[in-house]
Amino acid sequence: MDYDKLALDLHAKNRGKITTRLRDTHLDKTKLSAYYTPGVAAVSRAIADDPTKLSEYTWTNNLVAVISDGSAVLGLGNIGPRGSMPVMEGKSLLFKHFADIDSIPIILDVHTPDEIVATIKAIAPSFGAINLEDIAAPQCFEIEERLKTELPIPVFHDDQHGTAVVTLAGLINAAKITNRNLADSKFVVVGAGAAGTAITKLLKLYGVGQILAVDSKGIISHNRTDLNEAKKLLLEHADGSSDGSLADALNGADVFIGVSQPDLLNEELIRTMAKNPIVFAMANPKPEIMPDDAKAAGVAVMATGRSDFPNQVNNAIAFPGIFRGALDNKVRTITDEHKVAAAEAIAALVDDPTPDEIIPSVFDERLVPAIAAVIK
Amino acid sequence: MDYDKLALDLHAKNRGKITTRLRDTHLDKTKLSAYYTPGVAAVSRAIADDPTKLSEYTWTNNLVAVISDGSAVLGLGNIGPRGSMPVMEGKSLLFKHFADIDSIPIILDVHTPDEIVATIKAIAPSFGAINLEDIAAPQCFEIEERLKTELPIPVFHDDQHGTAVVTLAGLINAAKITNRNLADSKFVVVGAGAAGTAITKLLKLYGVGQILAVDSKGIISHNRTDLNEAKKLLLEHADGSSDGSLADALNGADVFIGVSQPDLLNEELIRTMAKNPIVFAMANPKPEIMPDDAKAAGVAVMATGRSDFPNQVNNAIAFPGIFRGALDNKVRTITDEHKVAAAEAIAALVDDPTPDEIIPSVFDERLVPAIAAVIK
Repeated sequence: MDYDKLALDLHAKNRGKITTRLRDTHLDKTKLSAYYTPGVAAVSRAIADDPTKLSEYTWTNNLVAVISDGSAVLGLGNIGPRGSMPVMEGKSLLFKHFADIDSIPIILDVHTPDEIVATIKAIAPSFGAINLEDIAAPQCFEIEERLKTELPIPVFHDDQHGTAVVTLAGLINAAKITNRNLADSKFVVVGAGAAGTAITKLLKLYGVGQILAVDSKGIISHNRTDLNEAKKLLLEHADGSSDGSLADALNGADVFIGVSQPDLLNEELIRTMAKNPIVFAMANPKPEIMPDDAKAAGVAVMATGRSDFPNQVNNAIAFPGIFRGALDNKVRTITDEHKVAAAEAIAALVDDPTPDEIIPSVFDERLVPAIAAVIK
Repeated sequence: MDYDKLALDLHAKNRGKITTRLRDTHLDKTKLSAYYTPGVAAVSRAIADDPTKLSEYTWTNNLVAVISDGSAVLGLGNIGPRGSMPVMEGKSLLFKHFADIDSIPIILDVHTPDEIVATIKAIAPSFGAINLEDIAAPQCFEIEERLKTELPIPVFHDDQHGTAVVTLAGLINAAKITNRNLADSKFVVVGAGAAGTAITKLLKLYGVGQILAVDSKGIISHNRTDLNEAKKLLLEHADGSSDGSLADALNGADVFIGVSQPDLLNEELIRTMAKNPIVFAMANPKPEIMPDDAKAAGVAVMATGRSDFPNQVNNAIAFPGIFRGALDNKVRTITDEHKVAAAEAIAALVDDPTPDEIIPSVFDERLVPAIAAVIK
């Protein structure tokens, strides 16, 4: 399938992917005078008197802004806000399609954390929740943390937490298949960007065993003098007591989690891991190792980011339900506990985990209600 | 009709007025892979390579942001962004209803011109055009001017120019009825806020005779020492050579245009005007003088801002067609010449002007195409 050509054709034909419509499609002159002047003044006065009524009377109760500065677009890198727009509008399409959430893409022509935070705070009353998307690490960490602290609505950087939640869901079922206790297992997480950092934090919170975080220079350890602030903070969650290469890290490891680059892993390295290892090779579009090669080296359970292999770690499994629950249950902050609960809810939808099915399909209609029910 | 109750009921029942939907309602797995990853990357690359393709491939080609800080909401004053949201969402509803334009309300939690300009510039690539709404004078003038200069998309402050365009349209037909030449007529414009200033500028550009601008202190003249920057600039368009009261200004005037306050005008003052005067009393919700009283004093043609009298000067007559034309014809700036052309197009839709019909109904379906055709 030539997705490039199909995508260009469909986008040009439909001139975009989303549109607005009126909730009340039977407008007449009387209703117009209630939805706009003079009647609307009573609604404005009610909200001015009691701002909590904003979500009762306006579309903000079901509205998520997908916000990006285009600095780290999946597979494309820093292509700027305009180039990122089709991806953000696509995310808004997913919100509507999977969870019936109104969503609008907002692309930002500013790039420093101060400017991004100031801009989003200035427009935040317009929305019910904010999905940050494709903002480069390490700025994305500071931006999300500040917005979470300073805004009264949910702020969720999906590249971090969506990936982490689905990864944890898959690991819960992979552990069952391989008769592992995650609390006693050794993890190697390769890639210290948005996703790798969030995965490390969530795994630690969940209570897994040793986690070694690895970047292009090797194990991220306290001895390293080249670490930026974000990587130093990562050592609050990963074990930074020993130095070494990726090969050193993998020796005896139970689980490999890659959000790094194609072909980083090979059969020889896998054979140094514990017996029946678990490999999540999520580099996109080409994983750290292809599933056939991994299985040939003895991998018991394999996941990737791709839809053409079993066990796709796809953010769209998690975020629609997480936001559906946050909006419906008036959740102000999506917490770490919410993320763990979402992962457990996703894992529980697989009745009988097998190596080829540890994660439900993104098209599983039970996902959104099951996840939304635990975001409360 | 108790519009307050109806408005509160309808807003609560529908939980807002607009919603999003997908342009392509027949989604399947293949199309999802084209609208989102992996196919969408080709679309993003195409826009990153040629930013003019943004409007071909994304919904920005039909998208207007309605932006307010809630500092001067019709009839309510400075009620803040949240209180203004129902009005802005109502404006988005009007955009969709009258001109099939996708529109989203954006409310701003910042209020200085610098902050408002910075915020709107930061999010501007997200939209095809920007409608500024209910921002207080005199800040609104600076904000609009700076954005028009600094952004490559149309920026239009409807409180100023929408009102001015419909006022000019009405005056063109009122002049026909009263056998006046607007170029020889004497105008008194009362109210030096957003609308009054824009009306004065547009009338001068159109080539009318003397214009006296009047505020709460009397005629705005060069001798006044209490004028803010905006009122000083207004004297580039109004005649500031003489001082005096409203009564002095009205003596012998052909046209009264009020965007000021209820009951400012009375029969005695009208009798000092020229014979068969024209009175546009547009204070809301109660005009400067009620139509019956004006007619009793000899007014030949009367207009108000209200839908329950003839000749409603309603912005919704103009802005849907102006933005429809700007988007369809890829107009980068809505110029003064566009505004005059729009006024003439509106006036021309009244085949045979009478004192009770100088302005078409807002429900006249010829309006949007007729106006859009001249915004090019």
